[in-house]
Amino acid sequence: MTRILEVTDLILRDAHQSLMATRMAMEDMVPACEDLDNAGYWSLECWGGATFDSCIRFLNEDPWERLKTFRKLLPKTRLQMLLRGQNLLGYRHYEDTVVERFVAKAAEHGIDVFRVFDALNDVRNMKTSIAAVKKSGKHAQGAICYTVSPLHTVQAFVDMAQQLKEMGCDSICIKDMAALLKPQPAYDIVKGIKEKCGKDTLVHLHCHATTGVTLVSYMKAIEAGVDIVDTAISSLALGPGHNPTESLIEMLEGTGIETRLDLDRVLKIRNYFKTVRPRYKEFLSDITGVETEIFNSQIPGGMISNMESQLKQQGAGEKIQEVLLEVPRVREASGYPPLVTPSSQIVGTQAVFNILMGHYKVLTGEFADLMLGYYGETIGPKDPEVLEKAKAHAKKDLITCRPADLMKPEWEALRTDALSLPGCNGTDEDVLTFAMFPQVAPKFFATRDQGAKNLSKEPSKEAPAPAAAPKAGEAAAQPTGPVKYAVTINGQTHTVSVATAR
Amino acid sequence: MTRILEVTDLILRDAHQSLMATRMAMEDMVPACEDLDNAGYWSLECWGGATFDSCIRFLNEDPWERLKTFRKLLPKTRLQMLLRGQNLLGYRHYEDTVVERFVAKAAEHGIDVFRVFDALNDVRNMKTSIAAVKKSGKHAQGAICYTVSPLHTVQAFVDMAQQLKEMGCDSICIKDMAALLKPQPAYDIVKGIKEKCGKDTLVHLHCHATTGVTLVSYMKAIEAGVDIVDTAISSLALGPGHNPTESLIEMLEGTGIETRLDLDRVLKIRNYFKTVRPRYKEFLSDITGVETEIFNSQIPGGMISNMESQLKQQGAGEKIQEVLLEVPRVREASGYPPLVTPSSQIVGTQAVFNILMGHYKVLTGEFADLMLGYYGETIGPKDPEVLEKAKAHAKKDLITCRPADLMKPEWEALRTDALSLPGCNGTDEDVLTFAMFPQVAPKFFATRDQGAKNLSKEPSKEAPAPAAAPKAGEAAAQPTGPVKYAVTINGQTHTVSVATAR
Repeated sequence: MTRILEVTDLILRDAHQSLMATRMAMEDMVPACEDLDNAGYWSLECWGGATFDSCIRFLNEDPWERLKTFRKLLPKTRLQMLLRGQNLLGYRHYEDTVVERFVAKAAEHGIDVFRVFDALNDVRNMKTSIAAVKKSGKHAQGAICYTVSPLHTVQAFVDMAQQLKEMGCDSICIKDMAALLKPQPAYDIVKGIKEKCGKDTLVHLHCHATTGVTLVSYMKAIEAGVDIVDTAISSLALGPGHNPTESLIEMLEGTGIETRLDLDRVLKIRNYFKTVRPRYKEFLSDITGVETEIFNSQIPGGMISNMESQLKQQGAGEKIQEVLLEVPRVREASGYPPLVTPSSQIVGTQAVFNILMGHYKVLTGEFADLMLGYYGETIGPKDPEVLEKAKAHAKKDLITCRPADLMKPEWEALRTDALSLPGCNGTDEDVLTFAMFPQVAPKFFATRDQGAKNLSKEPSKEAPAPAAAPKAGEAAAQPTGPVKYAVTINGQTHTVSVATAR
Repeated sequence: MTRILEVTDLILRDAHQSLMATRMAMEDMVPACEDLDNAGYWSLECWGGATFDSCIRFLNEDPWERLKTFRKLLPKTRLQMLLRGQNLLGYRHYEDTVVERFVAKAAEHGIDVFRVFDALNDVRNMKTSIAAVKKSGKHAQGAICYTVSPLHTVQAFVDMAQQLKEMGCDSICIKDMAALLKPQPAYDIVKGIKEKCGKDTLVHLHCHATTGVTLVSYMKAIEAGVDIVDTAISSLALGPGHNPTESLIEMLEGTGIETRLDLDRVLKIRNYFKTVRPRYKEFLSDITGVETEIFNSQIPGGMISNMESQLKQQGAGEKIQEVLLEVPRVREASGYPPLVTPSSQIVGTQAVFNILMGHYKVLTGEFADLMLGYYGETIGPKDPEVLEKAKAHAKKDLITCRPADLMKPEWEALRTDALSLPGCNGTDEDVLTFAMFPQVAPKFFATRDQGAKNLSKEPSKEAPAPAAAPKAGEAAAQPTGPVKYAVTINGQTHTVSVATAR
């Protein structure tokens, strides 16, 4: 009796997001689609994450058109997207109507599987999008952000899986964006979910490869009964990306478990992307080997180098070790959020401020909002002293409700604003684009008819971008306070205020 | 009860042999020695393999002095070398006295652990060196070359382990030079050896990382009870090299098994070699990701690209696919030798000849010798028709004895020849150097007093070397035959003869 392990390939979304700053042009993906559609993947992740942002910010490409093209070229295979729950693909919370409209449009244009997550693992921030996916008749996958802290026990992850299942999720994803998931916890969590939620509960594992241990974690997860794993074709794999599809296929030999993948097709896909990757040299990640320090600092590698260069610009390059030690303390003070966009930026920036200007002498507006519940609930309690500083700084109180519950209907206002922009085509799709990227959409609408760019062919004049990381300035309201400074950290200018010491 | 997994680091030998064509200068290794000696490794592989050849061929460095320096700088840790059994570090068989003298000298200057292998897994080619190691009071490790064929069953490997144990080996190594060992067979072989040879039999696993699956194989081997594994520090790992030491340490968390390694020391070693690697850019392997085709072709990646470029030089670049399909057939005809130096070159070159000039129309002298038993015994029978052609070509008969049994005492002649060379210092060490590399030693002796070179500092004028692969021309007597051609394949000029068709 052969057991089948299903595979999702990440080539069209997370692989190029992780390895080449989300810059791959649609033109470079089209030639592989026939092989991709016939290779036997359970799904192809091809939309969402940072691709929407990158399309309009860098590629002058309409992301909705990209999705429609994928649907045409990939008729047989499930199309999958990554959705940030109540944040959609933007960097703030949206009112429920906007979330519902977005999901309906994505479903209409071809998404079959919606992988929904929340940066804080607050399931309240996921419920509207999950309900909307169910309403559209599509596959709702609830994702758990994997992280490590004294409170993130196997039981805590299993309990979250059960909550997601009760919310109607068709499958559960363990999302290990920082390659922190080691083999033994991978085994324990998958086994725990299967035991608690039922053995027929589909469990899907997504690991990055950065630390070099996660293909081993895949093996142990497979032994524990995982149903689907995420890989990337070897020519677009490893480094800060993912484990190679071919290595996964081969490692199963003799175990009684196999994939449905057609190796000849996989080989053709490999050879094709081998020719594409070097053309994006300008955007390629520097990391080619493994990085294991993240197990200590809990900070993604890309972020460490960002913090390092920014500290240097402030003439404080020698403080990097202090900052690395401060990050886990800031994380503890803020209730142990997983470090993923945007919490990683918020926590990291606050750690830099603490070291440069004194312990919580200066708060960013985003950090105050995180402390006060405006991003949602964290697993652990907040540090009471820091919480008081956040209240004083932001001149608002702690909230305990779902953040979006405080929002007023905003669709009509967004629509009015979007339609006033030159080049806006008046569709709901354009309104959604504007809603998510109000600072970028105007320029995109105005230039859209010039056609999509392929940055690998016409080297752009933009400075080599460090990553497709979101701009934290878009994440929340700017802080206000008694004394204001403009401080540039991680390439972003923050208006920060110094609260009187208390 | 914590179980300890021991670790051998390959930095000083196989890591730079695999990643930078064995070019690392002693000068670049010295600064790491204190940390290496205190990190808690079971052993440090630092000598043998291609390092001896590289020292005298490229680095103008006396390999015996290198060994003495390591011994001085690494007083606490076992020093390990790789020895090709009856071939020592050269490319032909030596008479027993030479083997015994070599082992005694290596032991005298500091080697603690001798890893002994034979390219054909013919234990008769290993027995003299193993006995010599035992006589010197050092650790004799018998290595099994892992390969895949219908005859290479788990049982066959286990039986070979038992033979090695009976020959007095202190430990058994499974040597997976092509990264072919998948997790399930890794588990089965280690378990099989422990069951057959006794659970106290030390089992040491050496895998390359090329195919991306072997860290998983390590995990399964560990579950089966393996005692020691080989890794390389992450800054000198992956690609055609080995699995990263840090990833191994981290992946064990929560399993009840741990290494004795000091992570702070390991980190310092990592950071140090991170600065060394880029300086050898000229010699770095092109392969940075994974290569999984070897599972089909059984041909190491470096060899495929060599064959490709040589076919192109012959105007037959389009024949590469035919050659790749021919290799397994030649391997079958010659009794399924493992593909490792020198059998990989011999089989590969014969496959090229078969495709370019017709099926066994032209035999290389080395291939005829392989067929006729002059390299030792293979696991499988020879193809009778091809065997007849080899006899006719070489004008000699099949042998079934141990090849070295046919050799006459040669030490005195080697000594006389060596001592006649300008710059030879008259020591047994110099005689051994000459014995192994008679074509290279004369120039080395003559230039030795100019001191060792660091190729990363003074870029050499030599053409970028494809690898430190041995020159097959040194491997055996040149063939003779009715019609002779000089044919250059894989960068080596072969004198080949065309035998009349029969």
